[in-house]
Amino acid sequence: KNASNSRSFFQPLLHGYFRSSCSWRVRIAFALKGIDYDQVPVNLIKDGGQQLTDQYKELNPMQQVPAVTIDGVTLSQSLAIIQYIEETRPGPALLPADPQKRAKVRMICDLIASGIQPLQNLYVLQKIGEDKVSWAQHFIIRGFVALESLLKETAGKYCVGDEISMADICLAPQVYNAERFKVDVDQFPTIKRLNQTLLALEAFSTSHPSCQPDTPADLRA
Amino acid sequence: KNASNSRSFFQPLLHGYFRSSCSWRVRIAFALKGIDYDQVPVNLIKDGGQQLTDQYKELNPMQQVPAVTIDGVTLSQSLAIIQYIEETRPGPALLPADPQKRAKVRMICDLIASGIQPLQNLYVLQKIGEDKVSWAQHFIIRGFVALESLLKETAGKYCVGDEISMADICLAPQVYNAERFKVDVDQFPTIKRLNQTLLALEAFSTSHPSCQPDTPADLRA
Repeated sequence: KNASNSRSFFQPLLHGYFRSSCSWRVRIAFALKGIDYDQVPVNLIKDGGQQLTDQYKELNPMQQVPAVTIDGVTLSQSLAIIQYIEETRPGPALLPADPQKRAKVRMICDLIASGIQPLQNLYVLQKIGEDKVSWAQHFIIRGFVALESLLKETAGKYCVGDEISMADICLAPQVYNAERFKVDVDQFPTIKRLNQTLLALEAFSTSHPSCQPDTPADLRA
Repeated sequence: KNASNSRSFFQPLLHGYFRSSCSWRVRIAFALKGIDYDQVPVNLIKDGGQQLTDQYKELNPMQQVPAVTIDGVTLSQSLAIIQYIEETRPGPALLPADPQKRAKVRMICDLIASGIQPLQNLYVLQKIGEDKVSWAQHFIIRGFVALESLLKETAGKYCVGDEISMADICLAPQVYNAERFKVDVDQFPTIKRLNQTLLALEAFSTSHPSCQPDTPADLRA
């Protein structure tokens, strides 16, 4: 899937980074839908950050990953990308049919995507400086306290009932981030249990940061 | 609409704050759809913040506004609420029918809702302390540079083409926040032009922070 020499015009092209939780969200969605895609690594650290180049800014003016070129357009913002995939591709539904369940899925997605992830994003932590680990922990724990409380009400086998959804796509990458910042996830038994269930699925393991084309050798699973 | 003594079980109930940009998003959506609703003010400043009470935490464990009680459930996260309204209520569509246009609308919404607003949210600025104004300006300007660039490609009369959408619902409240933090919006001509168009619409003026039931007298329009 890293065969950049044989990229197909017809296959989606993911500009991402192995460890970016928002890139991982998109990789999970592709995997759950069974969609083949090509990857172009954008190294957020090397050369001062490849996302800051003029070339990349054309793809995503926010200078963040992911961006996906698909059906002749380039989209950014992971949840917008995933909903585009959901609305244009067959395969397992990533949102439930029932409107109230859909709302609960989106509520969990947005709690993570607006309430937690942006506050521990690379460019924010760069601005925070030396206190960055305690800053990230503070906002992840604050968000997980709320998320645990919501999930206790909504979860079955997965985040909302017994069907996998966009909420699960957001959960596992955020738990991965929490662990990077040494947050003790044992405090959140529902989050922990759901994450373990998700990591056992092929769509989550094949898309995991530990086994991407750009994963450095020392971080490979 | 603040008649809490005559609240109807059948009318949506918005727990919000006049100046919260995420509460304003929901008010615009209700207004565009022509939906009557009741409001319960949650004062984010008074008594140390009414959103921090145990009573409010039951409605939204993130202890933020808005929360909306509708059809027997309470939902939080403004974009999840607005999409629930879109999927269950008649009236003008808040998302285009074309999947690529929908993706562009959601991309703009998420750029604001994940890329800008969370970084200048009250509870983040409280943690930043005395540098809060320059912090907020930094992230609003960073986001507006990207947003201006996207909107130059997507905008017609409104953010995406000539039909109003969820992107417009996110734009005007974010510009309102930018102005509160003394960001010079003249730097962003497309954002400025769209905002002026939006503020002239009744759905935006009746829902504006300057004329809500909980707007203090000295801030009333």
